[in-house]
Parts: sequence; C-alpha cells; structure tokens
Amino acid sequence: MKNIIKGIIPPMITPLLNPDTLDVQGVANLVEHLIGGDVNGIFILGTTGEAQQLSTRLKKELIAQSAKCINGRLPLLVGITDCTVEDSLIVAEFAAKHGATAAVAAPPYFFALSKSELYDYYTTLADKSPLPVFLYNMPSHTKAMMDLDLVEKLAQHPNIAGLKDSSANGVYFCKLLKMFASRPDFGLYVGPEEMFAPMVLMGGHGGVSGGANVYPKFFAELYAAAAKCDVATTLALQSRMLEVGEKLFGIGQYSAGYIKGIKTALKQKSIINADCMAHPFSSLNADDSAKVAQALQYLDSL
Amino acid sequence: MKNIIKGIIPPMITPLLNPDTLDVQGVANLVEHLIGGDVNGIFILGTTGEAQQLSTRLKKELIAQSAKCINGRLPLLVGITDCTVEDSLIVAEFAAKHGATAAVAAPPYFFALSKSELYDYYTTLADKSPLPVFLYNMPSHTKAMMDLDLVEKLAQHPNIAGLKDSSANGVYFCKLLKMFASRPDFGLYVGPEEMFAPMVLMGGHGGVSGGANVYPKFFAELYAAAAKCDVATTLALQSRMLEVGEKLFGIGQYSAGYIKGIKTALKQKSIINADCMAHPFSSLNADDSAKVAQALQYLDSL
Amino acid sequence: MKNIIKGIIPPMITPLLNPDTLDVQGVANLVEHLIGGDVNGIFILGTTGEAQQLSTRLKKELIAQSAKCINGRLPLLVGITDCTVEDSLIVAEFAAKHGATAAVAAPPYFFALSKSELYDYYTTLADKSPLPVFLYNMPSHTKAMMDLDLVEKLAQHPNIAGLKDSSANGVYFCKLLKMFASRPDFGLYVGPEEMFAPMVLMGGHGGVSGGANVYPKFFAELYAAAAKCDVATTLALQSRMLEVGEKLFGIGQYSAGYIKGIKTALKQKSIINADCMAHPFSSLNADDSAKVAQALQYLDSL
Amino acid sequence: MKNIIKGIIPPMITPLLNPDTLDVQGVANLVEHLIGGDVNGIFILGTTGEAQQLSTRLKKELIAQSAKCINGRLPLLVGITDCTVEDSLIVAEFAAKHGATAAVAAPPYFFALSKSELYDYYTTLADKSPLPVFLYNMPSHTKAMMDLDLVEKLAQHPNIAGLKDSSANGVYFCKLLKMFASRPDFGLYVGPEEMFAPMVLMGGHGGVSGGANVYPKFFAELYAAAAKCDVATTLALQSRMLEVGEKLFGIGQYSAGYIKGIKTALKQKSIINADCMAHPFSSLNADDSAKVAQALQYLDSL
Repeated sequence: MKNIIKGIIPPMITPLLNPDTLDVQGVANLVEHLIGGDVNGIFILGTTGEAQQLSTRLKKELIAQSAKCINGRLPLLVGITDCTVEDSLIVAEFAAKHGATAAVAAPPYFFALSKSELYDYYTTLADKSPLPVFLYNMPSHTKAMMDLDLVEKLAQHPNIAGLKDSSANGVYFCKLLKMFASRPDFGLYVGPEEMFAPMVLMGGHGGVSGGANVYPKFFAELYAAAAKCDVATTLALQSRMLEVGEKLFGIGQYSAGYIKGIKTALKQKSIINADCMAHPFSSLNADDSAKVAQALQYLDSL
Repeated sequence: MKNIIKGIIPPMITPLLNPDTLDVQGVANLVEHLIGGDVNGIFILGTTGEAQQLSTRLKKELIAQSAKCINGRLPLLVGITDCTVEDSLIVAEFAAKHGATAAVAAPPYFFALSKSELYDYYTTLADKSPLPVFLYNMPSHTKAMMDLDLVEKLAQHPNIAGLKDSSANGVYFCKLLKMFASRPDFGLYVGPEEMFAPMVLMGGHGGVSGGANVYPKFFAELYAAAAKCDVATTLALQSRMLEVGEKLFGIGQYSAGYIKGIKTALKQKSIINADCMAHPFSSLNADDSAKVAQALQYLDSL
Repeated sequence: MKNIIKGIIPPMITPLLNPDTLDVQGVANLVEHLIGGDVNGIFILGTTGEAQQLSTRLKKELIAQSAKCINGRLPLLVGITDCTVEDSLIVAEFAAKHGATAAVAAPPYFFALSKSELYDYYTTLADKSPLPVFLYNMPSHTKAMMDLDLVEKLAQHPNIAGLKDSSANGVYFCKLLKMFASRPDFGLYVGPEEMFAPMVLMGGHGGVSGGANVYPKFFAELYAAAAKCDVATTLALQSRMLEVGEKLFGIGQYSAGYIKGIKTALKQKSIINADCMAHPFSSLNADDSAKVAQALQYLDSL
Repeated sequence: MKNIIKGIIPPMITPLLNPDTLDVQGVANLVEHLIGGDVNGIFILGTTGEAQQLSTRLKKELIAQSAKCINGRLPLLVGITDCTVEDSLIVAEFAAKHGATAAVAAPPYFFALSKSELYDYYTTLADKSPLPVFLYNMPSHTKAMMDLDLVEKLAQHPNIAGLKDSSANGVYFCKLLKMFASRPDFGLYVGPEEMFAPMVLMGGHGGVSGGANVYPKFFAELYAAAAKCDVATTLALQSRMLEVGEKLFGIGQYSAGYIKGIKTALKQKSIINADCMAHPFSSLNADDSAKVAQALQYLDSL
C-alpha cells in the first residue's frame, strides 16, 4: 500500500446464476469490462456486492475467481464486513492468500455500537488482519456514524489505510478532507457517485461508484477531469454521469433496487449470465427489465 | 410443537472464557440454575446471547453443550438470525441434529427489508428449516418492523410457530393478541421483561426475559400470577421483578450494557466462570462490578 | 386538582367548517356526545385536535366555546404545546380565564431538546402557568423521549400534575407505574387506545383515546372493567374497542389519517357539520368516506 | 426577484437582551457588521435565528428593526416557518410591509408530512404570500425530506423562487444542481457552511452560513473564489473557513450549541449586547465563554 489508490474503484456486483451459485464466467467478463473501462481498482463484497446476503462459501469462490481474473493488473479490495471479528478474519485471510490488496470493513451492524466499541472493534481487526484495512462509514446500514475524532484516532493505526464514506454527508466528507490534508497516504473515497466529483475537486482520492459497473469509462473520465481541477469539463461530464443513476437506479424497488438495475443492465449487455439476486432480493420483473433496456439505449448514445 | 410453550423462556447469555472460547462448565451450571428456577424453555443465541458477535464454530459448540445439558427436560429454542439464508440453515440443521425444539429468526439486518422481502425471506427459511421457526420482531436492531398483515400471512405457513416481539410497542402486541385470539397454537412472547406481565394478563403466552438469567424464580412466579389473572399478586410481583432490571441493567454502558450486568451477576454468583463478552464488547470495570455486587445483595433479599 | 382525573379523557377533534373557521355548533354537539358517553374529562387542542395546525385566534375560539358547552360538568384539559414559552402561556392564560382545569404541554418540537433543556422548559412553563401542567410524552412528533429520571424530577414541581404518554412504549409506561406507585396524586394516562386497558389493569389512571370521540361508551365501559381488575370483562371489551381503530383509523392516508377517519365518522353521524381538516391536511375522498360509512354500520351493531 | 441572489446570505442570529426582549442596538450593529463584511443578503428568523423559539411579537420587532437598518442596501429574507399557514402569512405580510425581499419557509414540523401534503402546503402558502417564497429543506428538524420530484413540481409555481438545503446531503444537492441547470432563475443555496464551496464550484448560488455572522469576509472571499472556479484559492480559503466552525461550534452543548458559540463571539466582539438565548436554551457558562475568547484570538489572526 505504499502508493495510495486514486480514481474509480467500482463496487463490483456479484454475478449469480442462482442465489447461492456464482456466475464464474460472469465474474471473468465483468472484470475485463471494468479493466477495459480504465478503472483504478476493484472492490468486491461491498454493499453493492450483496456481501451480507452471501454464504461464506460463496464469498470465498468470488474472491478466488476475482483474484484469478484480475491477475495483478489492478488493486483488489475485498469487503470483510461482518458482525463477528472471527468470521471477518477468515475472509481477510482467504483474500490475503489470493493476493488481495486490502480489506474493507464497515462496523458490525446488529447492535448500534458506541464510539469506544467501534475503536476496539477496528483496532482488534487491524491488529490481526493480514491485509491493510479500509474503514467503511455506512450509517444507514450499520446505525453507526464514524465520528471524525474516531477516524482521526484509528488513522494512527499502521494497518488502517483509508476510509470509504457512504454517508452522503457533504459536511462530513469536507471535514475529513481538511483533517487528512497532511496525510496523503490516507485514502478518502466517496461512496455515492452523485457527489464524488465535487469531493475530488476538493482533494478526495476517488469514488466507489456503483454505476461504474455498467459505464466505467463515464466515471473514469469524470474522475480524471476533477482530479486535474478542470471544472468546466467536470461539470459537463457530471451531467452525463448522473444520467446513469437517474435512468438505472430508480427502476428496481426498495433499498437494493439500484443493484437490481445494475445486474439487469449487465445481463442485457451480455456481460453476466443472469440478473439473479441473493436472498431475499428478487430480480426485476419483465416490465422493469424493459425499462432498463430503454435506459441502456439512451445511455449508450451519450 | 403440538403443545405450545407457555411461560418464561430466558434468552440465555453465552458464557465465555474469552471472546471466542465457550465456558463449557458455565453453560452446564446456568442450565441447571434456570431449570431449577422453574422456567419453561431456554432460548440460546438470541440478542442477549450475543449471537451476532459469535463465530459459527462457537455457535455450534454452544448448541451442542446446551442440548446435552438440558437433555430433553425443557424445550430448547435456538436463534438462527443471520443475513444469509444459507448460513441460517446451517445453524438450524445443526440445532435440529442436537434435538432442539425450534429455531428463532429475526430478519436479515443489513439492508432495511421491505414487507415483500421479509415475506420471501421467512417463507424461504420456513420451507427449508428442519425446525419450526419463530418470528422475532426486533426493529431497533433489524430496521424492520414486522407489520401485522405480514405476520398474519406468515402465520399461515405450517412451519412458522409463533412470534417473539422485542419492539416494546404495547399497541403492536395488543393488536397481535386480538389477531391471534382464535389461534391458540401460535405462540406470542414478549421480549422486554418490564411489560410481559400486562401482556400475559391480556392473553400473551410468555416472556423471553433477560433478567430471568439471574432470578428465574421471580419471573416464573410473576408469570404464574398473570397467567391465572390474579391481578393483585401480579402487581405485587411486578414491582419486585422490575427491581432486577433497575438495579442490574443500567450499570453497563451502551446498548449491550444489560448483557454485561447479567454476566457480571452470574459470575459473582459463581454460576459462570467469567464475565467475558464477545467482541467488540468489554466487561464491566471494577467500579461497575462493585455496583453489581451491591445490587445482588439487595435483590437476593427480596 | 385535588382529585385526580381517572378514566377516559377523549382528545377531542376540532370541528371545522373550513381550515380556519370553527364549527361552533359541532363543538356543542360533540361535547354533548362525549358527556353522554360517560367520559371523565375532555382534552382539546391535542395532536388529535390538530392544535399545531390551528391559528392562535382559532385556538381561542375553540377554548371559549368548549368551556361554555362543558359548563363545569367535566374537567377541561387544554393543549398549550408550542415551541415558544411566551405563546404557550398566552393560550394557558386564556384557558384559565375560561375555567379550564389544566394545561397539557408536549415539548417544543423543532429542535431536538436535551434532557436539561426539557427540564428548564417545563420548569419555566410550570412556574408561570396559571393552570396545573400535564407533561405530554410524544417522541414521534417532538423528537424527545422524556426519560424517567426527568419525569421524576419534574414531578416534584407543585404545578406539574401528571403525564400523558403517547410513546406506545409498554416498557416505559410500566416503569412509570412503578415509579409513581406511591404518588396517587400524579396522573398517568395512556395515549394509544390499543394499550390503555392493560396499563389500567397495572395501575394506570386512564386513556386519552382518539376513538372515544366516536364511541365514548365503548371506552368508558372498558375503562371501568379494567379499573376494577375484572380481567375477563376487560378482555371481552378490549376486542370490541380495538375494532374501532381497526375499522376507522387505517382508511385515511398518512400520519393524520386517523383524525380524518374520526372526523368523517362524526360528520356521518351528524355530530359535526363538516369533515374539514386544518391545513395542510385534506379530507377523505368519496371512496374512503364510503368505507367509513360501512365501518360505522358494523361498529354501531357491536 | 428578477435578479437572483448569489453569494453569502448569513442566517442572522437574533440579538436578545433577555429571552423575550430584542437587543435593538445589537441588530443595528450586526447588520452593519454583515454589510461591512461584503455579504450578499441577510436572512432573519431562520433556525440560527431561533425563530421557532420567539414569540410573534418579538418576530415582528426583529423584522421592523432589521428592515430599517438594512434600508434597502441588501436583500432581506425573512423566515416564516410555522406549522400553521395562517400564522406564517401573518409574518409574511408584516415582512412585506416592511420591504422584505422574500420569505423562507421550512415545512410544518409537528406531523411528518407526506409528499402530497407538502405540495398542498407550499402551494397554499405561495398562492397567498405577498413575497416570493423560498423552500427550506431541513429534514433533521422537520422530519420531511423534500424529494426531488416535489421540488421540481413546486418550482413551477410563479411565486416559489428557490431552495435552501440544510440536509447536508451532497447527493441531494448535486441532483438539484442538475435538475435546475436550465433554470438560472431558481436559486439553490447550501445551509451547512462546510460544504457550500464545492457546491458553488458545481453551480450552486451561495451559502446560508452561520459562521458568517462572525467572520463574514472569510465566507465572502471563499464564495468569490468558488464562483469563478478558482479551485486552488477555494481550497486554501476553505481550510480557513472551516476553522470558524471547528473552533466556535463545538463549544456549546446540544443541538443549538453552534448558536450559543456565535452569540458569545458576537458579544465578546461588542457587536451585540448580550449572549442571551431564547427559551429553553441557556447561554454558555464561564468556562465555555473563555474558550470562545481563545478561539476568537486565534481566528482573528488568520
């Protein structure tokens, strides 16, 4: 981790043939699609990867297959979020053996943890993890907002390498940017794609953008413009990028709807073999799938 | 499950020697303590059992040891709550092999699930579970309140046997009682001990009461009074029972504080061998432990 | 306030001819309907009374008219909830001049107040109020749960007379009952009608039940059974009472839907002259009004 | 409102001599301080202005005095947020008579309103308001997030002129910027000062920044840099601006703490005559006031 990762790190969806069977060929295709789209890393087993809905066995298959397909061409980040330290480490160790670059962990998410419990959790995890650990702030799902002073303390740990923030809170991220202005080795990444460009203009290191599963180049170009502070180009590309989510994310219902939109789009583009979701999520129905087809026709033309 | 369970079903704490090592002797002692206290069933691997913080391996050890110690003397209910259907079923099957009576499942708790997703989840689980399934409503931890019409639909499933409600919502439980007044085979249990007595007066089947780990007899006597609609005795015993939580639950900080209070009390009573909590929780400090000792002295005198 | 109020205190809806015009005759009719239904007090300008949506001028008209119609036959409680102490006191003083019995105040509801701010607020209010003040716990609308130790402290104030709890939290109310077991002068009332009966069995003083606007006798009979600890009758009447809310409250959409159901029912019973709601609420549409008519036919037959 | 307001519009605190007495001279001084600091408008009776805690009488005094002091030199925006349409309009009409430029209204905040209720509310208000209305999105205090499609519909109303967003949600604001890219007449302003600069880089029209009460020039300079897309200067000035909140806002406890910090700072700078807060808030204690003095010494040196 000497060189910090900068740019677009798509949170890869998990291609499934059925709720507990990996689409092995789909993983291979999707990895090529992403690398061909000039992304800067690949993050598997995040929220978009439905990690919490996957069995430990399937997680391991996905790690092995992703690592094999990437084959060292890009950093591989692996989500190890779990309520149990022991089971998180089982995944981290498996990922390390397969050459992963780093582990990403949101807080345990059953109990709402206090600040000192979060500190203890991450310290225990980072002490034992064979991979550098990225913090993952995701209060909507974990009930725990990682306060700035907590992040500041955790960032002193030699095995904690950065933070992905999915809170959508612009105040929080702007304060993080100031706090770590003198720590260029501590990576700061934005989850929600709609706001990564302005945060990169202000010094952020990249975006973990769900829509980049489908249109990686849109995101890579936008990142490049923002990273060199070309505001005019950023504004122009931002508008195009926002269309991806506008057209694809609102079709599927409920909180995992955006994942359904992405999977259906990738299936229609023949990158993955099925739009299957893990339990208890269901795929889009025929009407909604038709809307995705329309959306892709429009988005492909941009 | 021909005969519905009625009465006190303590959510057993998980005795630990260290965060990933079971206190095998502690389990044996605690089971005897509970059976000696006239409880009507034992529920392991619930929230009070820190199930979400325990590795799969440790869960299995606890199931095996609990089943061996209970040895058929009482119904054994086993929590199988997990975000993954596959991993829930692994625990359910293990429990079934060891003679457990039923499985208890709160909804997956990372994504906030919609009503139809909850329906699909429980239907899938109940279809495949070798044990009857109890629903477990726990919105503070799972983000999902199980609406009454959902419960009504799920109760039609032949392998769904009842519901434990930990919402503390008196309106909700009173509506459940009316909804299931003509379904005496569908068990309705109250999580928070402070309110089980009035709900039993109104027809509820029992309480899954944390404090019963320490003072099972207090709870069993209160249940008995409420079950036979002896309001005067209920009121008198309710006051004594409430003292348990008042004195023990507020000492430990944060959301798992009440578990710390119970473990410390059981350690001081030499029923378990350590007050150790699973990661990322810490035990009470010396000052707080001293408060527990004082509390026990008072409570033992009641 | 020497004699504590016990029993059913309906939170009276505010009859309106249009959003800012009082239905003066409707108030008169409704007061007679309630007194004829054997209620034990009348509470105007509560949540069910849409107080927060009414102009100060209209609030004063309602107070004057209600006081005139009740004419001392029953205690009159007046909601004075406001974010501003000064404006709350204007209403309290007006109510006192018209012979009201007590004022009821939920916390200021724009900022989420801390415990010490709630203490300061109520102390200031009670010091200056010409009427005894009832606390009103309503966390869903005020963002502030009134902790037990706060209530205990406030109950020492000579001008604070009791508490209405609309949290629906059975644990909270059971703890209140224990806390005030030796303070029979401090009134404890339950907001949500579905749970008042079990709380009265356990020692609560009554219910502030929205459905009692329409069927006061159902509620008065249930209260009487519970107050004398006749569990069998309580259970039988509870079932009938629950039908009121089941049939009437779910028809109107959104959070004020239950108020729409009550107003439409009272209009159809010719007790009030219009089903008009205050801004920004709208009345039920024709389809939903027809459902209310059906519901009344059924409920009248019970 | 032909010319849209761009730049910094401080949400002016309300100078008070005691909780219900206006500091008339303080208003005059503060207005001069702000105009001297190159702000682009003044917003009174917002959240920072403690509007919800002020009596109607005091609100009117503040409007009259502010209008007199500004004397047409800058746009005057007046908060009219209230749960009652009728009382909101009383304030709006008073403001219009005193020459205010626009009214700003957050949704009614007692009930959580649905989207259609919000639409009805704002349409009613805008129809009747003598001043153009700005929408004010403030979900933490009003419980209602103003969805994008609602804003889009409301923006068609000829008397709705823009939106102030205090949600701190970067995704939301970026989507607003795209939605209104072709509507340069619809003003989009950011509440939380920490994130206004990146949003102005992306096309936002300004900031309603609490800290600008104390250091208006810091904010005006930052706005100017961002508005001309000078990213390097923006980054340098952003860091200085963030120090204001870091040093001043965390001293006072609880949700209104930042207002206490601002008032104490302005008192110490002899701009206002007292650090008095409206009920039920209390001023900083001596220790905390000393911290403000230290903070000012540091900030004045930047």
